Amino acid sequence: MALSLSQASEIVDAGLRKARELELRPLTVTVLDPGGHPIVVKREDGAGILRPQIAHAKAWGCLGTGAGGAAGARHATRDPSFFAALAAISEGRIASSRGGALIRDKDGTLLGSIGVSGDRPDNDEAVAVAGVEGIGLVADVG
Amino acid sequence: MALSLSQASEIVDAGLRKARELELRPLTVTVLDPGGHPIVVKREDGAGILRPQIAHAKAWGCLGTGAGGAAGARHATRDPSFFAALAAISEGRIASSRGGALIRDKDGTLLGSIGVSGDRPDNDEAVAVAGVEGIGLVADVG
Amino acid sequence: MALSLSQASEIVDAGLRKARELELRPLTVTVLDPGGHPIVVKREDGAGILRPQIAHAKAWGCLGTGAGGAAGARHATRDPSFFAALAAISEGRIASSRGGALIRDKDGTLLGSIGVSGDRPDNDEAVAVAGVEGIGLVADVG
Amino acid sequence: MALSLSQASEIVDAGLRKARELELRPLTVTVLDPGGHPIVVKREDGAGILRPQIAHAKAWGCLGTGAGGAAGARHATRDPSFFAALAAISEGRIASSRGGALIRDKDGTLLGSIGVSGDRPDNDEAVAVAGVEGIGLVADVG
Repeated sequence: MALSLSQASEIVDAGLRKARELELRPLTVTVLDPGGHPIVVKREDGAGILRPQIAHAKAWGCLGTGAGGAAGARHATRDPSFFAALAAISEGRIASSRGGALIRDKDGTLLGSIGVSGDRPDNDEAVAVAGVEGIGLVADVG
Repeated sequence: MALSLSQASEIVDAGLRKARELELRPLTVTVLDPGGHPIVVKREDGAGILRPQIAHAKAWGCLGTGAGGAAGARHATRDPSFFAALAAISEGRIASSRGGALIRDKDGTLLGSIGVSGDRPDNDEAVAVAGVEGIGLVADVG
Repeated sequence: MALSLSQASEIVDAGLRKARELELRPLTVTVLDPGGHPIVVKREDGAGILRPQIAHAKAWGCLGTGAGGAAGARHATRDPSFFAALAAISEGRIASSRGGALIRDKDGTLLGSIGVSGDRPDNDEAVAVAGVEGIGLVADVG
Repeated sequence: MALSLSQASEIVDAGLRKARELELRPLTVTVLDPGGHPIVVKREDGAGILRPQIAHAKAWGCLGTGAGGAAGARHATRDPSFFAALAAISEGRIASSRGGALIRDKDGTLLGSIGVSGDRPDNDEAVAVAGVEGIGLVADVG
């Protein structure tokens, strides 16, 4: 079971509306299906050219380990060598930073993940949460 | 000079409306800036998991050589060894198939590129053209 | 909007004149367009064989995150795990060290970036700044 | 023994002057040392974003096999499977197309190589030869 394109689009658009309300720096927001494959990517005007890959890695990393981005960031702080290994093991598909979340329904079923990049990690995470909650789903940041 | 996120979103959405009118198979549509970096990616429900990379490679390949996807497809037919080399040189960033187009304004200025993947190459190309022309820009398929 | 080859050549040559005035070690200087693609690369006699890639990574990293090399170097000191992840995410396209700068016009419009490698980071940065300012543009080191 | 930066710069500039005389499409010209490492790269305004890598691969391929680009192109036509393998073996560093030449002095000593990309292979080769002969050296196209 995965998010539809329609749901993923609403999540991304709700997240970007939040970002503009908060007047954050230009962001990129990515929503992946449970297999780690993109459904929607949007990069705002002026965002750096690596932001799509960073947003992807935040979202992919949550699926990779089965834990939200905040949990990943704490884990990486405790065990940086392991995350250095994960970077290589995943061939650069993991970013251990806040701004990523697993997307679940009310029953906890995994539907996909979201990654946000461009501002400070806590702001990126706020946008991820706003987007997912904007359509009545649960953002599991860990 | 590049497309705004707003323009790129309209291009992708216009393309996908065309795809539903034509009842094509599930598609992925990607719009890149002139440097080959994603602005918007959308993958329809049921599309294969490699489609985002294929759509990316169709769009990126146009920017890589400076020619639309139809021109690239003809060139690859004439000189398959060179395109096999290009696949490696570009680290898998080029797909020499119809479904990609350079996006230009009325004066010919390069604004980005589009790639579409999921149906037959000519149908993918029709969607790319419909999306770009949908906002009054020019789809250069070569 | 990007630098012309003529502008990029003048930037590189002005930077290398500065390097010879300062009697620095042999340098490589690279100027990229806003999409991260080379316009001009020059490697001085005696420079190490990895210097072109290091200069490229300093310049590319600025575009990747949207911040100059000095800002990147400070960020990497604060959060080394994230930059280890970025090295993998970017497939080796980022060097978080001084010697890179975004190139802007007087109005702040991004025109490209410059990377310099071969001497100490502060000397590399001095060469980058001298090159960019040599044609009346702004070197944003962050 | 290798070309100096000064010599390599003159070769590239002489090649680009020839290209403008012939009114060719926008080109990229690369000169490598005998170890296959860039000394000078210049990309003209409007050239595709993969052109630097293609020019590099034309120049590198000559050093890789020890034969000029015309010889490589003939060889690839006779034995395409071998060149498909070479693409992988070299990790994308070889392009088997005209437009590359070994650079030798009058005595046949290898000094480096040149690669040109952006127009038809025969035109690219004419630019390579004009650049190298412009400073009194020998362009060995094979």
